[in-house]
This record gives sequence, C-alpha cells and structure tokens, in this order.
Amino acid sequence: MGVAVDLQDAGASANPGPEKSGHESALHALADYLADDMLACNKAIVARMDSPVPLIPQLGAHLVAAGGKRLRPLLTLASARLCGYEPGPDAQRHVGLAACVEFIHTATLLHDDVVDESTLRRGLASANAVFGNKASVLVGDFLFARSFQLMTDDGSLKVMAILSNASATIAEGEVLQMATQNDLSTPIDRYLDVIHGKTAALFAAACRVGAVVAGRPEADELALETFGTNLGMAFQLVDDALDYAADQQTLGKTVGDDMREGKITLPVLAAFHAAKTEEERAFWSRVIESGEQTEADLPRALDLIAQTGAIEITLARAATYAEMAVAALASFPDSEIKRLLVETASYTVSRAR
Amino acid sequence: MGVAVDLQDAGASANPGPEKSGHESALHALADYLADDMLACNKAIVARMDSPVPLIPQLGAHLVAAGGKRLRPLLTLASARLCGYEPGPDAQRHVGLAACVEFIHTATLLHDDVVDESTLRRGLASANAVFGNKASVLVGDFLFARSFQLMTDDGSLKVMAILSNASATIAEGEVLQMATQNDLSTPIDRYLDVIHGKTAALFAAACRVGAVVAGRPEADELALETFGTNLGMAFQLVDDALDYAADQQTLGKTVGDDMREGKITLPVLAAFHAAKTEEERAFWSRVIESGEQTEADLPRALDLIAQTGAIEITLARAATYAEMAVAALASFPDSEIKRLLVETASYTVSRAR
Repeated sequence: MGVAVDLQDAGASANPGPEKSGHESALHALADYLADDMLACNKAIVARMDSPVPLIPQLGAHLVAAGGKRLRPLLTLASARLCGYEPGPDAQRHVGLAACVEFIHTATLLHDDVVDESTLRRGLASANAVFGNKASVLVGDFLFARSFQLMTDDGSLKVMAILSNASATIAEGEVLQMATQNDLSTPIDRYLDVIHGKTAALFAAACRVGAVVAGRPEADELALETFGTNLGMAFQLVDDALDYAADQQTLGKTVGDDMREGKITLPVLAAFHAAKTEEERAFWSRVIESGEQTEADLPRALDLIAQTGAIEITLARAATYAEMAVAALASFPDSEIKRLLVETASYTVSRAR
Repeated sequence: MGVAVDLQDAGASANPGPEKSGHESALHALADYLADDMLACNKAIVARMDSPVPLIPQLGAHLVAAGGKRLRPLLTLASARLCGYEPGPDAQRHVGLAACVEFIHTATLLHDDVVDESTLRRGLASANAVFGNKASVLVGDFLFARSFQLMTDDGSLKVMAILSNASATIAEGEVLQMATQNDLSTPIDRYLDVIHGKTAALFAAACRVGAVVAGRPEADELALETFGTNLGMAFQLVDDALDYAADQQTLGKTVGDDMREGKITLPVLAAFHAAKTEEERAFWSRVIESGEQTEADLPRALDLIAQTGAIEITLARAATYAEMAVAALASFPDSEIKRLLVETASYTVSRAR
C-alpha cells in the first residue's frame, strides 16, 4: 500500500511535511483565495482568546502557535462567499462565525487530548502535556463559553440553533466513541454515528451558517449542510486510515495512537472482520479489547491491515462521501470558490493515496 | 467556635442532616411556594438530560438521584415571580431558563470534580468516581451544550448574552482558582474574584433572567443581578468556612477537602495572615504550598483556624454580602416571594452559625 511513501512523494521530497501534500495544497489555495477573510478571522480568534486571567491567553497562544489547518473556519468563510455574501466594514458576520466554529473545535480538541491522554497534537506537545489536564479542561470550557458569546454577538437565532445543536451532537459523538472503545463488536454503523457526531456535525454547521449569513433560501442551507456532513465523514475516515498508515512526521501525531487507545475505527473493524484465522481474531481481541500491547503489536497490526485491504476499504468509503459532498454543490453556479471547495473535497481523500 | 455542633443543634438531633438546617428550611419554604414551577423544572431537567447515547441519561440519572438543592433554578423561578411573571401553558420561559441554569451548574460540577479529583459530592460517590473522569468531562460538555440549546429555545438575545457571559465568567473563575492554588500570597481580592467568577456570576445571571422574562425595566434586572451576586458571594464564603468547620455528614462532603487540594480560601488566608509565630507560617506553607500533609495536619489546621477567628472573619464577610443582597431587593414591593428570598439570604449565612 505504501501510503506514507505516497504522501512523501506528493510532498516533493525536499520538505515532506503536511504543508506540501495535495490536501494541504487545496486548503492553501482556498486560504489564499480567502486571505483577507482568514486574516480577519485569525485576528478575531486571538482577540477573543484574551482574558484578564493570564493562563487563558497563555494556553491560547500555545494553541495559536501550534497552528492547524483552520479547515472549519475556512469552510464557513468559503460557504458564505459561495452564497454571494459580500463582506464589508459592516458585513463581517462570516468572520465572527468562522472564529466561533474554530473555538468550538479547539475546546473539543483540548478535552479530547485530556480524555485520550495524548501528548502530541499537530506534531507539537499537546496543551495538556504542557499546561496539565486541569488547565485543558477549564480553558476548554472557557473557549466553549466564548463560542457561545460569539454566536450571541452574531444575533441570529437560526445560527444559534445550528451551532448549539452541533455542539450537543459533538459531545454525544464523543461520549458514544468512549462507549465503543475496546469493543470489536461495534457495528460499522455505530462507528459512522461516532464520526458523524465528533467530526461531521461541526463541518456541516460550519458550512450551513455560511448560507444563513448570506440570507439564502433553506434549500441552499441544506445543500451546504450536506456538503459539510459528507466532507466531514470523508475527512474523519481518512484521518482514521492515516493513523495506521502515515509516518509520524507527515501526520503530526503518533502512528498507532488509535490502536494504543483501543479506539474502534474502520481500519480495525475491517481488518478484524476480514480476519481469516482464530489467531488473527485473538490478536485483535488482545490488542484492542484487553489493551495488552507489546512493541511488536503495531508492526503486526499494520501488516494485518495491509493484508486485509482495510485501508483501501476505509478510503473507498471516504471517496464515496467526498463524491456526495461534491454532488451536494451541484445547484450552485460555477465559480472559483466552488471549484476550490470541490478540490478540497477531492484532496481530502487523495491526501492518503 | 463549634460550628459543626451548632449545625447539629439546628438539625434538632433526630436526623441531623442538611435537610434540617435553617438554611435548608428557608430553601424548602421557597421550593414549597414554587412547587408547581419546581416540578415543571425538574421534569424539564430529566427530559433534556435524555440522549440516544445511553451513557448520557445514565450519568444524568446519577446526578438527578444525588439531588442537590436546586438553588440556582429556584432563584430564576423566584426572581421571575418577584417580577410578576405569570406562568401559564404558554408562559413557561422561567422553567426552561431555570433548567438551563441548572445545566450550566451541573456541567461545572462535573468538571470541578474531575479537576479536584473529588470522590464525594453531596455525600454520595461523585460522577467521576462512578463513571470515570473521561465520562465526566464529555457529559459535562454535553450538558453545557444542552444549556445553550435551552437558551436558544428561549429565543431572547438578552437572555443569551446574560447566560453566555456568565458561562465565560465561570470558566475564568475556575481557571483563576487553579492559578491561585497552593499560593498563600494570593491577595484576598483575588480570592474574591475567584468566588465571584466560580459562584456569584451564575447566581447573578440566574436572578437577572427572571426579570428579563417578566419584561421588567433594566433597573429591576440590575437589582436582581446585584441580589444574586451578593447572595452568591455569601453562599461561597459560607461554603468555604464549612469546609473547615462542618462534619462530613452535615456537609455532604469531606471536611478538609479544600486543605488537601491546597485551595486558597478566606479561612486559610485569614489564619495565615493572623499567624503569630514563624512555626505557624511554616505549617501553612508546608500544608498549603508544598502540599506535604499528614493525618495530624487537619486537626492542627482546625485549631489554628479556631484560634485566629478565621471562621468568624469569613462569616462576617458573608453576612455583609447577605445584607447587600437583601438591600438590593428594596425597590420591590413587599410580597411573600420577597420575604422568602430575604429569608434565603439570611439563612445562607446563619446555616453556619
């Protein structure tokens, strides 16, 4: 399969990092096209990360320095533009909501890293590793509250309903993920519920509010919601594939993290379902269900996953979602921003091929 | 001082529990007066605790079974009534917002217990002790998101601003509390900032939204906000005093918890500031700042706190806040609900005397 190698190829050798993959190129093209909006959004994020309690901007600066793709706020900004929203000195709702979406996401990341006991995030020490679990829980709460202040500032009840519903769905997805942990009998549909909750719901909301600020009819809101949902599903499936396929430098996280946590993802379910011997099933049961792991287990797991085509199965599903995402944009007239959104959906999958 | 004994006296011997203290009696009288509203509020809490993800209602049922005084929702219901809000089949905004306030509070409690590593809450095993820290973090997030859905359902931008601002202030208070932990050089004003954030801000918001749903002028909103702020300050000061004074059965938590956590509260600051010898100062520094504690330290700390009058100092401050709370209600005409609110403020302090 050689996914890691492919990624490095796409990275054009000299600096094979996430910056250079096709996926990142598509995102960079989108971010370049929306450069003014992104600048305003980043300013808003830094400004609203502030607080008279010093630890909050300190931890915030760590998060901002860690960077990240800002994919979700990009989606809000792009969706607003796709819907014809014309920014101006008094028309910056898309920026405030893009920042809001990023705050929800960041709050979730902080709590995720505590729950998963992660020490790396985007290749750097995670906030909980630097500031401790307590700070991450409490600053996560602050960012979550801040996101609600940003929604309130926007002033649209429709936007508030979309984003507060998404927040509840994210939390449900995270709890469901915890409940499926270490359980190989988890049906694939339940795994799909998990990634819908923890990832796709916010992608969907981020896109939909773009149509709301532009005052477009509900059909356009729903089209963008469908685009976001399917893009989010594709994105998370690829992420879950990369956890068993990418090298640490490319991914910015430790390969095999999901395995170490006994997380139920499609690569594992597919490999387990395709297991041909009792010994293979016993291997997965020991590693994922009982959590007894040795150093030899990750190579063995990667072998089994390669043998059973579990990565291809996962990426094929991702490709189907990405196609559905693109199809959802059919009703929008052709434009540069539409082309960039379509490219983002394509590269979401091709980044792992 | 013998606060624990006084509390048991107030408890009339047979069943010396929190149910029987004067404070609880005042709350019971308030809850009795608002029985229909409280019933509706409890129903709303149970209904909105539901989710297709089973762990959420399971953990929710644990929280509901653990009970609690429901003081904050009571304040919303009472404030609405004080302002002349007339409930009816289509006038239940006060109930939804009372539930919302309780959700914010419960989310905070769940995260507090994780951060403080508490094993007891209201005399029962805490949720994190039963369900684990991960579940408490994630279900806390869910309840927080749910509170924002409840605000959105209410539909008033003013209410949303009040409650989302309170949520951010609570998180700031919690972070500030963490930053002052183990630090005896914390100024008393900073301690007051902490309890304003972590407790008084939600009391204030809970009261203020009662005036908003009743459509009263801003002066009344502000009067109720002032009432709530001062009541919250008094409440937290008394709570902090009880941590060094009450017996475990009365308090429903472990005496000395704050000391074990190196939490900076007024009883400790007052005892430290009043220390007469270098040995006393060294004792506090070891116990609170370096966290090296032995079994003999709690009795010694209680002795020093008693000798220096630190509890009286704390309760005197609480009494002043309670008086300011009562004074803030001056502009409201006399009524049974006003009398009950005044009594609640008085008993907030007298419960510890």
